[in-house]
Amino acid sequence: MITVEVALPGRSYPIHIGSGLLAQAELILPHLRGRQVMVVSNPQVAGLYLPALRQTLEAQGLRVAECLLPDGEAYKDLEHLACIFDRLLAEGMDRRCTVLALGGGVVGDMAGFAAATYQRGVNFIQVPTSLLAQVDSSVGGKTGVNHPRGKNMIGAFKQPALVLIDIDVLATLPKRELAAGMAEIIKYALIRDREFLDWLDLHAPAMMQGEPELLAEAVARSCRHKAEVVLRDEFEEGERALLNLGHTFGHAIETHCGYGNWLHGEAVAAGMVMAARMSQQAGDLSQADVDRILALLQACQLPSQPPAMHADDFQSLMAHDKKVLDGRQRLVLLRALGHAEVVEVEPERLRQALQSMLHA
Amino acid sequence: MITVEVALPGRSYPIHIGSGLLAQAELILPHLRGRQVMVVSNPQVAGLYLPALRQTLEAQGLRVAECLLPDGEAYKDLEHLACIFDRLLAEGMDRRCTVLALGGGVVGDMAGFAAATYQRGVNFIQVPTSLLAQVDSSVGGKTGVNHPRGKNMIGAFKQPALVLIDIDVLATLPKRELAAGMAEIIKYALIRDREFLDWLDLHAPAMMQGEPELLAEAVARSCRHKAEVVLRDEFEEGERALLNLGHTFGHAIETHCGYGNWLHGEAVAAGMVMAARMSQQAGDLSQADVDRILALLQACQLPSQPPAMHADDFQSLMAHDKKVLDGRQRLVLLRALGHAEVVEVEPERLRQALQSMLHA
Repeated sequence: MITVEVALPGRSYPIHIGSGLLAQAELILPHLRGRQVMVVSNPQVAGLYLPALRQTLEAQGLRVAECLLPDGEAYKDLEHLACIFDRLLAEGMDRRCTVLALGGGVVGDMAGFAAATYQRGVNFIQVPTSLLAQVDSSVGGKTGVNHPRGKNMIGAFKQPALVLIDIDVLATLPKRELAAGMAEIIKYALIRDREFLDWLDLHAPAMMQGEPELLAEAVARSCRHKAEVVLRDEFEEGERALLNLGHTFGHAIETHCGYGNWLHGEAVAAGMVMAARMSQQAGDLSQADVDRILALLQACQLPSQPPAMHADDFQSLMAHDKKVLDGRQRLVLLRALGHAEVVEVEPERLRQALQSMLHA
Repeated sequence: MITVEVALPGRSYPIHIGSGLLAQAELILPHLRGRQVMVVSNPQVAGLYLPALRQTLEAQGLRVAECLLPDGEAYKDLEHLACIFDRLLAEGMDRRCTVLALGGGVVGDMAGFAAATYQRGVNFIQVPTSLLAQVDSSVGGKTGVNHPRGKNMIGAFKQPALVLIDIDVLATLPKRELAAGMAEIIKYALIRDREFLDWLDLHAPAMMQGEPELLAEAVARSCRHKAEVVLRDEFEEGERALLNLGHTFGHAIETHCGYGNWLHGEAVAAGMVMAARMSQQAGDLSQADVDRILALLQACQLPSQPPAMHADDFQSLMAHDKKVLDGRQRLVLLRALGHAEVVEVEPERLRQALQSMLHA
């Protein structure tokens, strides 16, 4: 087991990463407050992992209730958030209860927001079951739901007391979702860890085969990177923006294609290639660098091309990103492999770049 | 103008109290972040005070939008909270906007919760227009909405950047609501300020006539008391419980009679008399002490008797209060005028006390 300690000002919490952790009650017990646990999950994940987790907890005399949400970004809204409150109150959970998120990003975001606001805040534990949630949602404390007019428009910062990452659950994750998580892992390498990029070039194929020790190591390294960046820039004003490599392009792809048709990680993969090509146009990356990124993404069965779209449509969708301030498009580009920077890009330069890439 | 500075760890905010403050843009401007203000109010209060406030803000080049909620505790729910998010997004308010609550406790609680969770937190300013909200909600940061199964079950702590208390707005407050606010003011005197009790004995009649300077002084003194208590006990484990004098009895009255039939302050007034009578039974207060409390409440046209209820029903409603831990009833009682304590009361003693008071 690897433990990454996230040292927040005033408090800190551990991320435990390894095999068979769901059965180890001694990892969870120190982070509970009362004796009541509300597990928030979705039917598919719950069917696979809730019975074992429930047994682990009930064997310790804890009272375990469950709240199953329909799976998917489409249900990440206030209406389904209310279902969690209904269940908490129907089960008589008091302010010393623990909300435990067992699932991917949607479950984690909603359960975390419920934990942040039920009785003005109760204890929260995350058990992320998708690779993407393991490397992305475990650190940062962002929780929330969507509004018809925008993603994640309603939410709160809520830090967990514990993140428990049982690598074994990745065995049942669809290959396409495993790949989507790989995209975020590759992102950490590209923005700040060239050595990790070498490591991924070597090990990505075995990770895609589900090799648990390599997956655990990559998850731990990714969580450490995110923790370092977030702790240095809690309020999202500087370095934290680098975590958005590929995301502004990616959001345009997701919006154009409809959420769910492209997975978030897939859109980010294609977006990272677009960022890399702009960095190449600026003279910061070589053709060999770009080819290397392409090869790594392809080894993970990730897309390296955006879908067929008009450059004007693409640029207009990018302009709706909430990182746009006063009309200036700020993009995360690569100065070198393992080194990213936020760059303000003139609309005309962006238009030309998009035309060259979208008609490539 | 009187200013009470609430010194939170890491930051602080002012409560400005005086006449004509709604017209003084220079008090508000330093506490805005961007140029967008969403005023949350209800139709009645907005009809009286929004035009002037809007003029004050728009004269400074600010963009002002409004969200009017139906008045009353019955609408303090997730469904109406969603209306605030709808308005914020329809008006294109970004994360640098300010949510300004113009109204009583319901408006303040809902606007504050929206400010705590819109885009994971935006700037918040409170302009409380009821005496109760001025002395109770201005300090403490509690925001939230009700659930069918319980009051304030969903919420967050959100500190305002500014509380602006324009005493002039009390001129249009119904006398009954003015009295309800007086109950909370008297509470501060009873739990921790005997000198303030002397002052109130002298000035309560003129305050009930709306004398602005006396009202401003009493509001400031109450806010100072609440700030002192809350800052010493941020997490509600000790001294802060004293602020609940009369409230456990009062909640039983409110629940029995249905919310809105007894105003919160009225139920607290009757509850404080019940606490005082228990303190008298324990030998801590004299008959003269109790008579003095009764006379002050009567000078404020507040009830000093609970409604006709059976002692068993009353006790059972008290047991549902969320301050009950493990079946022990904890009550705030008076050791003397100006000095309160939390006391654990045996069920049998409480039953006898209730029987003597409810059949009096």
